[in-house]
Amino acid sequence: MVLQETLTFETRGRGTSNITREVERIIQRAAIETGICQLFIHHTSASLILCENADPTVRSDLERFMARLVPDGDPLFDHIQEGMDDMPAHVRSILTKMDLSFPIQQGRPALGTWQGIYLWEHRTHPHRRRVSVTLYGE
Amino acid sequence: MVLQETLTFETRGRGTSNITREVERIIQRAAIETGICQLFIHHTSASLILCENADPTVRSDLERFMARLVPDGDPLFDHIQEGMDDMPAHVRSILTKMDLSFPIQQGRPALGTWQGIYLWEHRTHPHRRRVSVTLYGE
Amino acid sequence: MVLQETLTFETRGRGTSNITREVERIIQRAAIETGICQLFIHHTSASLILCENADPTVRSDLERFMARLVPDGDPLFDHIQEGMDDMPAHVRSILTKMDLSFPIQQGRPALGTWQGIYLWEHRTHPHRRRVSVTLYGE
Repeated sequence: MVLQETLTFETRGRGTSNITREVERIIQRAAIETGICQLFIHHTSASLILCENADPTVRSDLERFMARLVPDGDPLFDHIQEGMDDMPAHVRSILTKMDLSFPIQQGRPALGTWQGIYLWEHRTHPHRRRVSVTLYGE
Repeated sequence: MVLQETLTFETRGRGTSNITREVERIIQRAAIETGICQLFIHHTSASLILCENADPTVRSDLERFMARLVPDGDPLFDHIQEGMDDMPAHVRSILTKMDLSFPIQQGRPALGTWQGIYLWEHRTHPHRRRVSVTLYGE
Repeated sequence: MVLQETLTFETRGRGTSNITREVERIIQRAAIETGICQLFIHHTSASLILCENADPTVRSDLERFMARLVPDGDPLFDHIQEGMDDMPAHVRSILTKMDLSFPIQQGRPALGTWQGIYLWEHRTHPHRRRVSVTLYGE
């Protein structure tokens, strides 16, 4: 059995948003006991990650780490048409990936206790982002 | 339904090659309406990424970023038997991954408008690279 | 057909462990000729990678590279409750990912000659880590 749904999120500019609940709801409605949940973001300047979900400091530390690793306005970059955060957003997305899969066990998302699913917006301005959720199993 | 095919690419040394069309062709021939396309590169010094497909400057910027992050000939590395690009190629592949999945929707690859599939050769010399494409769905 | 099994590994603190054989055994027992093997680690401070499996120097170089990229005790990080390796372990896991998929071909894991599956413990102390293996195909 395969089920597919596309979610839309309005981001508030650079930062991480917890989308675990939205994904869980789709799994709860489906009648799949054992399988996989595959997530995909249809963009090149936002990504999907699993991150510690208890202490918000983890996400602010992560954001600062990435800002240092791939700095906005880096003179290394020529692709600056859309601004100083344009090329860094592409690099950040490639380093943190646009696809993500995890198992479904006993009809539930089998995430670890501290694993939350986050949409990571890498552009400084707000954007509308589409995420497809594909479930398969039996 | 599961379909599998292995493609072979001859790279021209370090750099990215757009392989979207080759993957799309396999999906077009298959009779899968809703599902997943999983790509896998059977090597440890080349990777598969989704990257902006409109401005070639994005790929040259990306290459320069990676060359700075994981420099060839870094004295940190002891694994240099095959040359100064050997260990950097392994690190680059691990950071950008050898597997990649995206949804099939209405019989077509559901990539975002600006998402292209790229094989990223990390060795400086040309290599023959095998990429397996597995489609599943219904 | 979908098959799922969860493996448990006791790590000896920071470093990579080859878990290819444990995963292969599950594939050998299953009756799937063509499909996908999906691996998932249910934690936020350990990851799953494919790495060169012949020369141990590759893994020690990789460890040194990551220690330089995401240094323990970096003053950038505020999330230090569990120690100087706490936040670096989260960043390392996000950069190297908690999910991994590869094809099954002719009933066997279709890894490249030099590809081994490694569990990468990012905490300095030993931990018990759970990895789920989901096989699907026909």
